[in-house]
Amino acid sequence: MLDGIIISIDAMGGDNAPDIVIKGIEYFLSHEGSGRRARFLLHGDAEALAPLLEKAPRTRERSEVYHTESAIAMDDKPSQALRKGKGTSMWNAVASVKGGQAGVVVSAGNTGAFMAMSKLQLRAKKGVQRPALAASWPNLSGDMTVVLDVGANVECDAAQLAEFAVLGEAYYRAIYKKSEPSVGLLNVGTEEGKGNAVVKIANERLSQSQLGLNYLGFVEGHDISKGTVDVVITDGYTGNIALKTAEGTAKLVESFVKEALTRNIWSKFTSALNGWALHKLKKKMDPRRANGAVFLGLNGVAVKSHGGTDRVGFANALNIAMGLAESDFQDVIDARLDALHDEDDNIGFIS
Amino acid sequence: MLDGIIISIDAMGGDNAPDIVIKGIEYFLSHEGSGRRARFLLHGDAEALAPLLEKAPRTRERSEVYHTESAIAMDDKPSQALRKGKGTSMWNAVASVKGGQAGVVVSAGNTGAFMAMSKLQLRAKKGVQRPALAASWPNLSGDMTVVLDVGANVECDAAQLAEFAVLGEAYYRAIYKKSEPSVGLLNVGTEEGKGNAVVKIANERLSQSQLGLNYLGFVEGHDISKGTVDVVITDGYTGNIALKTAEGTAKLVESFVKEALTRNIWSKFTSALNGWALHKLKKKMDPRRANGAVFLGLNGVAVKSHGGTDRVGFANALNIAMGLAESDFQDVIDARLDALHDEDDNIGFIS
Repeated sequence: MLDGIIISIDAMGGDNAPDIVIKGIEYFLSHEGSGRRARFLLHGDAEALAPLLEKAPRTRERSEVYHTESAIAMDDKPSQALRKGKGTSMWNAVASVKGGQAGVVVSAGNTGAFMAMSKLQLRAKKGVQRPALAASWPNLSGDMTVVLDVGANVECDAAQLAEFAVLGEAYYRAIYKKSEPSVGLLNVGTEEGKGNAVVKIANERLSQSQLGLNYLGFVEGHDISKGTVDVVITDGYTGNIALKTAEGTAKLVESFVKEALTRNIWSKFTSALNGWALHKLKKKMDPRRANGAVFLGLNGVAVKSHGGTDRVGFANALNIAMGLAESDFQDVIDARLDALHDEDDNIGFIS
Repeated sequence: MLDGIIISIDAMGGDNAPDIVIKGIEYFLSHEGSGRRARFLLHGDAEALAPLLEKAPRTRERSEVYHTESAIAMDDKPSQALRKGKGTSMWNAVASVKGGQAGVVVSAGNTGAFMAMSKLQLRAKKGVQRPALAASWPNLSGDMTVVLDVGANVECDAAQLAEFAVLGEAYYRAIYKKSEPSVGLLNVGTEEGKGNAVVKIANERLSQSQLGLNYLGFVEGHDISKGTVDVVITDGYTGNIALKTAEGTAKLVESFVKEALTRNIWSKFTSALNGWALHKLKKKMDPRRANGAVFLGLNGVAVKSHGGTDRVGFANALNIAMGLAESDFQDVIDARLDALHDEDDNIGFIS
């Protein structure tokens, strides 16, 4: 076994795999990962990986290749993916975490398939009804807001939302090194009495809790970008739609900006200056910074990179994976979940 | 009774009422409303309105003032507002539509109170379980996307979502003069089988319908800004959160743009040019263009202007009100709802 933090990689997952995957690891090792003791188990086609590793000396030095014959396609349905199952690079990458050879698995492949395989092999933690997918979002204060669930569970009850609060808070602490991240529950208004039955019950449950969560109550849609709280809890249906609506809106505004800056009567004269401004903007809005959604609540850590990302984005997903593997956040979650469910029993909470 | 289209106005509703209300009407009459036969019933404090009307000759000529002693505060809860009830400018403005003196009512006041009063006085149309709030959203193709419900009903069943499709489609035709606007149902993915039980049933119901709606199936969050369909149907919980998330994201990106354009090493040199670009952007993103949310499904038309808008935004709400009052969209809705419910009976649809 390798020493240091061991990251299992689905080398064949993603729109531009395995090329971007290896370039992403190399980039990570030259930047955020430089000097940290990361090692990689590369699950994929050994023949395809060999020439790529030739050109990636840092990666080569810190990796072991585990050959696989097959891979999950980006458009396979989760059920198809599970049938292909064992022997695919994705399955085997997850299996390394299950078997204890690696601390965390990263894939840029098919999201549904990765969720299904992670759940099936790693199983939900004791005390977690269903794992959730957490995403990071840039906000006005220059920090990140973590939102969960963004798509793993289309229907959630109040007890699940309370569990998400525990999962999200521990995740935020581990990744963004904040000691008491604040938590809010997404709703249509901030007054008590607003919202559907599920969020009302969850709000009451979290407000009364003595767990020590920094729970601030209801927040609204605009609070995500504002950074009113660090962690925003919601069901997977609403969270997924909010995330995609935000992505769409960001693209819309960017397109308006581009038009405003380039369709200008002095356009030729100012194009260089405006190009610079656009470059700055692009950097600030860089979706790669926020790349890496995490499945929380499993016995093991699974990080999903965006399928179409480049090496910088993949490196960011690796940075998240490494940060989680280095932290004690799974233990924190276990302790907090125990306390939450003890409290449930004491107050007779039934969701 | 006055001739022409008669618009009942809550002259005391809004952050800057009655000042902005009168200025908004005057602006409307000098712009989009110029040459159209609009007339106004102004419900409000006659003493406060008199000096404002002095300075607004077009408005004065086309208005009748109905004195009211009291008004609903912006932070009154709907229940408080209903207790104050009769005699407030908002109540009386809605009553003019109920009594048939006006074809449509516009208020920039307290949203919850205006919803409650409109529902109580105007009542839901025959065949509508619950009225919905529809908002317009700029999209990439330069048109508008209408989204409903954005907050009237936190829980909706499939039958309601099908009704919203009928309401939204008729509204889009009336306001944006498109003959066969397309309709989509908001979900976490576009494949069949995605989503919760409610959207699956609603999708099946709408897909099988012979009503002649141009229904295109599921759409995702990013499709709202993309303009994939003209009308996006969703429940009031998700719609409200999506709308506010989009507003928050637009502000975030705008703030990044501003920073990128002004914190630039040539900032002094380029500030004039960039100021011009920012001005163009602001115009393009102008939230006033999208001002005017409409309660659909009532016996009468109620248009809600944003409380903090200026005269241009209020004029846009008036333009929507006038467009609706001039159109036959309520008759279209009645006919379509009849057909929808006949179809429900034929196929034995129970939501």
